[in-house]
Amino acid sequence: MDSAEILCIGTEILLGNIVNTNSQVISRGLADIGINMYHHTVVGDNPQRLKEALEIAFSRNNIVITTGGLGPTYDDLTKETIADYFGLPLEMHEPSRQAIIEHFERLRASGRRHAPMTENNLKQAMMPKGCLVMPNHNGTAPGAIIEGKGKIAIMMPGPPREMGPMFQNQVMPYLLKRSGQVMRSHCIHFFGIGESQLESELREEMQAMENPTLAPYAKDGEVMLRATALAKTPEEAETMLAPVLQELQEKYPKLIYGVDVNDLQTAAVRALREKGLTVATAESCTGGYLSKRITEVAGSSEVFGCGITSYANEVKEKLLGVSHRTLETVGAVSEETALQMAEGVRRVSGADIGLSTTGIAGPGGGSEEKPVGLVYVGVSSAWHSQVLELHLARGYDNERELIRYLAASHALRLLLRTIGMKPDA
Amino acid sequence: MDSAEILCIGTEILLGNIVNTNSQVISRGLADIGINMYHHTVVGDNPQRLKEALEIAFSRNNIVITTGGLGPTYDDLTKETIADYFGLPLEMHEPSRQAIIEHFERLRASGRRHAPMTENNLKQAMMPKGCLVMPNHNGTAPGAIIEGKGKIAIMMPGPPREMGPMFQNQVMPYLLKRSGQVMRSHCIHFFGIGESQLESELREEMQAMENPTLAPYAKDGEVMLRATALAKTPEEAETMLAPVLQELQEKYPKLIYGVDVNDLQTAAVRALREKGLTVATAESCTGGYLSKRITEVAGSSEVFGCGITSYANEVKEKLLGVSHRTLETVGAVSEETALQMAEGVRRVSGADIGLSTTGIAGPGGGSEEKPVGLVYVGVSSAWHSQVLELHLARGYDNERELIRYLAASHALRLLLRTIGMKPDA
Repeated sequence: MDSAEILCIGTEILLGNIVNTNSQVISRGLADIGINMYHHTVVGDNPQRLKEALEIAFSRNNIVITTGGLGPTYDDLTKETIADYFGLPLEMHEPSRQAIIEHFERLRASGRRHAPMTENNLKQAMMPKGCLVMPNHNGTAPGAIIEGKGKIAIMMPGPPREMGPMFQNQVMPYLLKRSGQVMRSHCIHFFGIGESQLESELREEMQAMENPTLAPYAKDGEVMLRATALAKTPEEAETMLAPVLQELQEKYPKLIYGVDVNDLQTAAVRALREKGLTVATAESCTGGYLSKRITEVAGSSEVFGCGITSYANEVKEKLLGVSHRTLETVGAVSEETALQMAEGVRRVSGADIGLSTTGIAGPGGGSEEKPVGLVYVGVSSAWHSQVLELHLARGYDNERELIRYLAASHALRLLLRTIGMKPDA
Repeated sequence: MDSAEILCIGTEILLGNIVNTNSQVISRGLADIGINMYHHTVVGDNPQRLKEALEIAFSRNNIVITTGGLGPTYDDLTKETIADYFGLPLEMHEPSRQAIIEHFERLRASGRRHAPMTENNLKQAMMPKGCLVMPNHNGTAPGAIIEGKGKIAIMMPGPPREMGPMFQNQVMPYLLKRSGQVMRSHCIHFFGIGESQLESELREEMQAMENPTLAPYAKDGEVMLRATALAKTPEEAETMLAPVLQELQEKYPKLIYGVDVNDLQTAAVRALREKGLTVATAESCTGGYLSKRITEVAGSSEVFGCGITSYANEVKEKLLGVSHRTLETVGAVSEETALQMAEGVRRVSGADIGLSTTGIAGPGGGSEEKPVGLVYVGVSSAWHSQVLELHLARGYDNERELIRYLAASHALRLLLRTIGMKPDA
């Protein structure tokens, strides 16, 4: 039975200068393939400690995946140490040498400021004899896979921008090919249920599943379940996944807002495009967060043209036409204001749907009657108008950003529902 | 000489469900105090592997800091395993038991949905005999410190929201007290220089420094250097830090935008408040990102009232008064449009300063003449108006968010400069 250990090499991780995201990316991939993972280890750029950590890792696992220590400087010793473990010499790998030279030529041609190529850079093309070399399309250090002694060592560069694509495009296919399998996965996106709640509802089921598997991921405050199947063919994998997706959609019809849609804003932009609709935003407490998230999506300019952040009451009146009387009597944080903001931005922009937020993000500004976390999100369209009252405070410190984020998320969810209600023309 | 290892316990880390941020927080703190850190290890909730990992960790270090495995379920065995290592029995710790009961009473009183208290929760109050108990103000599992056999074990809960405050408020003071020192640090914020560039310029200097130390952190695309001094008194520590700060400010007068200011938006809001000025934003390619960042700062409503996201040209004309002719002749992505947007939003809002962005964030929409990454940021005020032309593409995949983020950062930097130019009244 395969088991793997991740060995990250980098003093900058031990000093806390960077967070170790590589381990998560690799762990997730290996969990998908069904390779057991019992240990992560981090060591610095120190040859003796690296050697010891490698020996411990191979004493308890047959696969060791390293990141880091492939750089051009004297203290980058991963290849040397691992080649030594397998009893292999290093030799110049001509295609890698050529790729490094071309990399620097491209940098020079681009006119961007960069360090010149040195002899040390060419050291990065010295590879363990007989290894499988993995080209690096995002940097200079190639990766390598060594098989021998019943063990496998997989070496990748440390920068996540280089490691990530190499892992997805070269290491995962290598491991899958070795297992004689193909992998397919789908992401089921939830909104309106916490990760711990969803996990506790599905824990027994998830633990009992072997293939397909189901794993929860919290991503930017939303929850996503990933269903992954291993099979001989892609078709077989999809056939295995279909009942899992169907069962979840039947169990959580209101909480699931999409499959393979990335996030709420992507789902909303897609739905708008499909129906040929446009949206405009009027924001108070979210201060631009809502329009920022919509315009994150490439191609959003087709469905979004106008957003107004009316932080001040005068702007709510002047640009959005919120009534002075409403602001005077029930105040800016109210159902009435939310609705008038949504109506106002729809009128001003000519969009099909107006979407609004107004609330108290904190830490100051709350009262007994209108506490921090009270938010109204509103929608206005020819076929549906609605305001939701939300209570988003959780009682933690520094909740301002969380409240703003959740307010924008609820507005996007309301937008999705409104798009879904559009009667056919 | 002290050296420490971090041992994180949690199967969810090995499965890649979460990223291990705890290790970074702890590493950074220990680096500040000057405690050497040579290894991070992660193991799952498995008693045998936990025991082995603990023995390896103590064989090579005198301090082991654990996170996780303090929960109420049967597979949470950190306390048992570590107590066993020190030969200590577990016994009920009455104040912790009381705190857990009160925690659940507060949850019930708040009316929020939550799991009921079970006997298992009270197991969390069983502590190794004679240990120093660390109360948990953000959850149910107390932490613990055990000293014995010339070793120190420090146990903290796994959730970052619980671990973080316990580490900062209880573990750091414990370690500092033990070393007979106090610590002071200052953050020097840079904009306009990459982390690798700054690091290579200062590497030798940073490596030669022992106390104070200087460490680089990349935070959300900006670079920050943290200078930390250990001394007998706070005054002595500050005296040691002063020349470091002064030297950096003399060396990088244009690149440093503040000390201990958190980020560009906080620096900008503070500067606006100090001078009694207000700003309004007119955004195209950043789509609300700029106003989102300004309104992240608590209290920003004093200095910011109005933001307009004019993604569509009609909105640029109608709401901001950008001339139709300008849009027809030089286009939306131009110096002229950026300036008219900044002027327009200043006029509409009555703010002292108008700030604008217009550009091509990609991935589509670029041309030979106006490539992806071309951005103009503009400022308009009674005393200073200016437009900067920026080229923000780096040639990586998926640069849209990076380009938008950098565009907003450059706009905030331009805002800071403009505030600084305001003549005294």
